[in-house]
Amino acid sequence: MSHDKYTVGVDFGTLSGRAVVIRVRDGHQLAVAEHAYRHGVVTDTLPGDTAQLPPQWALQVPADYVEVLRTAVPQAVATAGIDPADVIGIGTDFTSCTMVPVRGDGTPLCELTEFVDRPHAYAKLWRHHSPQPQADRINAVAARRGESWLPRYGGLISSEWEFAKALEILDEDPQIYDAIDHFVEGADWIVWQLCGSYVRNACSAGYKGIRQDGRYPTREFLAEVRPGFADFVTDKLDHPIGQLGDRAGALTAQAAQWTGLPQGIAVAVGNVDAHVTVAAADALQPGRLVAIMGTSTCHVLNSTELREVPGMCGVVDGGISEGMWGYEAGQSGVGDIFGWFVDNCVPESHHIEARRRGLSVHEHLTDLASRQRVGQHGLVALDWHSGNRSVLVDHELSGVMIGQTLQTTCVDMYRALLEATAFGTRMIVETFVASGVAVEELVVAGGLLKNALLMQIYADAVGLPLSIVPSTQAPALGAAIHAATAAGAFGDVPEAAAQMGGRVRDAYTPIPENVAAYDRLYHEYVAAYEWFGRGNDMMRRLRRIDTRVALGAQA
Amino acid sequence: MSHDKYTVGVDFGTLSGRAVVIRVRDGHQLAVAEHAYRHGVVTDTLPGDTAQLPPQWALQVPADYVEVLRTAVPQAVATAGIDPADVIGIGTDFTSCTMVPVRGDGTPLCELTEFVDRPHAYAKLWRHHSPQPQADRINAVAARRGESWLPRYGGLISSEWEFAKALEILDEDPQIYDAIDHFVEGADWIVWQLCGSYVRNACSAGYKGIRQDGRYPTREFLAEVRPGFADFVTDKLDHPIGQLGDRAGALTAQAAQWTGLPQGIAVAVGNVDAHVTVAAADALQPGRLVAIMGTSTCHVLNSTELREVPGMCGVVDGGISEGMWGYEAGQSGVGDIFGWFVDNCVPESHHIEARRRGLSVHEHLTDLASRQRVGQHGLVALDWHSGNRSVLVDHELSGVMIGQTLQTTCVDMYRALLEATAFGTRMIVETFVASGVAVEELVVAGGLLKNALLMQIYADAVGLPLSIVPSTQAPALGAAIHAATAAGAFGDVPEAAAQMGGRVRDAYTPIPENVAAYDRLYHEYVAAYEWFGRGNDMMRRLRRIDTRVALGAQA
Repeated sequence: MSHDKYTVGVDFGTLSGRAVVIRVRDGHQLAVAEHAYRHGVVTDTLPGDTAQLPPQWALQVPADYVEVLRTAVPQAVATAGIDPADVIGIGTDFTSCTMVPVRGDGTPLCELTEFVDRPHAYAKLWRHHSPQPQADRINAVAARRGESWLPRYGGLISSEWEFAKALEILDEDPQIYDAIDHFVEGADWIVWQLCGSYVRNACSAGYKGIRQDGRYPTREFLAEVRPGFADFVTDKLDHPIGQLGDRAGALTAQAAQWTGLPQGIAVAVGNVDAHVTVAAADALQPGRLVAIMGTSTCHVLNSTELREVPGMCGVVDGGISEGMWGYEAGQSGVGDIFGWFVDNCVPESHHIEARRRGLSVHEHLTDLASRQRVGQHGLVALDWHSGNRSVLVDHELSGVMIGQTLQTTCVDMYRALLEATAFGTRMIVETFVASGVAVEELVVAGGLLKNALLMQIYADAVGLPLSIVPSTQAPALGAAIHAATAAGAFGDVPEAAAQMGGRVRDAYTPIPENVAAYDRLYHEYVAAYEWFGRGNDMMRRLRRIDTRVALGAQA
Repeated sequence: MSHDKYTVGVDFGTLSGRAVVIRVRDGHQLAVAEHAYRHGVVTDTLPGDTAQLPPQWALQVPADYVEVLRTAVPQAVATAGIDPADVIGIGTDFTSCTMVPVRGDGTPLCELTEFVDRPHAYAKLWRHHSPQPQADRINAVAARRGESWLPRYGGLISSEWEFAKALEILDEDPQIYDAIDHFVEGADWIVWQLCGSYVRNACSAGYKGIRQDGRYPTREFLAEVRPGFADFVTDKLDHPIGQLGDRAGALTAQAAQWTGLPQGIAVAVGNVDAHVTVAAADALQPGRLVAIMGTSTCHVLNSTELREVPGMCGVVDGGISEGMWGYEAGQSGVGDIFGWFVDNCVPESHHIEARRRGLSVHEHLTDLASRQRVGQHGLVALDWHSGNRSVLVDHELSGVMIGQTLQTTCVDMYRALLEATAFGTRMIVETFVASGVAVEELVVAGGLLKNALLMQIYADAVGLPLSIVPSTQAPALGAAIHAATAAGAFGDVPEAAAQMGGRVRDAYTPIPENVAAYDRLYHEYVAAYEWFGRGNDMMRRLRRIDTRVALGAQA
């Protein structure tokens, strides 16, 4: 049908970018194309071996993002078989908080000859964790001064976020710091490349940039963190805000050449991968908790109410969609924990049996685990192998497995870990509800959707009906929905989401007898959660012994 | 040297009997021979498929024990190349508490045609665990009545012991119960076969038969447990006691024919495998804690003092050697836990690598674990996969692994389990010391001796010099030492042990920096021990959910 219009959504992930072509009238995905970043994640040495990187560093090369525009986008359009002239807009989403230090014209410092061998000149990926000392200083000063914004972030600013990353540059390479004109979210930098102008998106600014009630942390606060840091906001961070779904600008001639799309079409304001998924799920109404479940889980939720919910990653006005308070929470390890278990804790016999059955080890263990009744394994686990993001906000916590006997099998432990992550989500849901933020439906997107046992466990253990997002490219779809809004095809993002997004409601419903059984096990989970998480410092001491030994000292 | 004299020691284990020939003047072992029991452990159906057995049952066929006398003993003598006429005595040791229901002449009920299809007519192996309800009743009544003997057993009588096993027969097959003339320890039944007379050994009577200060539990107590049980002691249990190392009698003509040994030589009073090892180690002096480390660990220790030590398995006058208070404690899972881990928690890559290196998986993991510094793995585990025998005396407890991260390897967890069992021993040592029973040296015997890393960990984590018993057949050597004493070659068992037994002192000594590091980790172990063991009922609740589900109910 030649009168159909399309938008392109591009999802910039950790290792690759994925472009989709979406039909505006119904959200149908016509094509997807993926392009892996040429330099991937830079953790050991800079490209060209010009410098070694310390531990916990994770950089990226911004030019790799542009390559996605030049390859994946035209490929997706070609695969879709549409006339590019029917594309009315392009939207993007990005990992966050990934930061690009740039000159006034948007040129990344790492593209300047004089800075090519300077690690701090590169994009710092979300998981660049080395600025923990900087985050610690920021948190200490904020707590001492009783900064009003601190409770909106669960009481802790992350080492992943904008201020810690910037302060690390000032501490370690002041010359680079001085050369920064704008310290830009990758989400906004890619939009800048598309439309030629820098618009700072409300989501990143709020969740990662500590922008609350239209203001950033004060000059006085920053000066107390470090005198030379006092003008960071005014000099390098503050910039006009764009609301999600707004038009950031028009596709430039150069970007039209890269992508093969028509010059002048709408470019949507930048967005973050988790948050944009809410649109893909058509779950912008209050009370729908969207869980994007992959290696970790991000929970996002709209509400009409502003509440201070303990241990959340943030609450931001318009952080998910304009006119609502967007809440974000998270579990720092989910699929990662299952993957760790399969790699490190599964005996040979199950690997052999899985191969014989033509299944992955995950599928094989899941099948065996699905034959168990709730509680049969006698185990309860804590899912803190990557620390606990919500609601304890403590990266020094670690995993626990309780109840092993000589009859315990790896299938038992695998199932206990699946359940532990479900209990972790229940704890987040209960914390929202106890704070006055309603949660009525659990909406799941992401790679773990494919595990039906895990989904049923979540419905049973959380005790909520579970909807699923059918799109396998939900963030890119969400970006395309924002593009359609920016292009004027819809009045606002919720209207576009209702037309183009969607979820399968009640895909899993709680089974009453399982709910009752999980209530009992959750009681044990909470007891262990309280004792290990709040009752004592054992895990922090163990981590400290561990770190001391790694540094060559004696335990 | 034709003037040398010899004794034979026979160790009756769970799956086989092992006979050794030992030179009296120096304890040198000339030969060993082993014979596996024809029927092994009977757990599913009776021999001849005449009856099915319920779960947790473990029976044996007494004729299998006699076969050991007829095969392993002559084979060991033949291999030794000695003149049988130079053998002056035979001694035995046995698993305990293994009970044989017999007629007045010692004939096991299961050898009577009318009872061959009756499960309760067979020998009940130590690990026959079905009489837990009977043990529970015995404990409840004893606690209510405040029986004075109860604290000498750490406050709990085990389902493995004589009274629970007998009460189970009365409850379930009263006709068999009525037919029992003597309810005899296997340790004493085999001596009866050798010398033709029944002598009840002081060790079993004390530890497993609740004989304290020359008395058994009263008729009133037994009547309260169950009226028909009131006369159990007088009718079926009470019998003249033989002290360890005494002569039970002379080898009968028939036993001489079975064994090829001279008729009339001394037969030593029966003994228990763990306790007799103290003689093999020449560790009868107070303050030497002998740990027999295998699938589980049994700790035995002499003292001149009678103390009520919390959570011990028992304290018995002359229970290890005449004239001393013998203490017994235990860890219900040690090698079993390591074995479970290797079978259930080690990834394929390590199996492949172990095969490539020509090592067992245990050896391979131990080698990798030995390269770690103390505390490096950041883990602490509780070694309760088989429950906790001492000092918590709770079989519903279970294992815990604390501190897992996505970087945790199976080598880390393996080492943490080795350390957990060492901490379990330290807890027992500290409990003895705190109660006024001195422990100055840790003496290790048993199969786990071969793991040098484990031994060093024990020396470091317990903080005591560690001696090892060089004999690979320590219980059989201990039995032979008792035989030499019974034959009059020595004045008493300590004198014989000094001559024939022995240990390598200071085989492992604590490394001060490791001791300091383990002090810190032990602090965490104790915190977890207290919380899971005494602070709450989580593990009992988990076990109950587990059991309910297994029975088909909902969790």
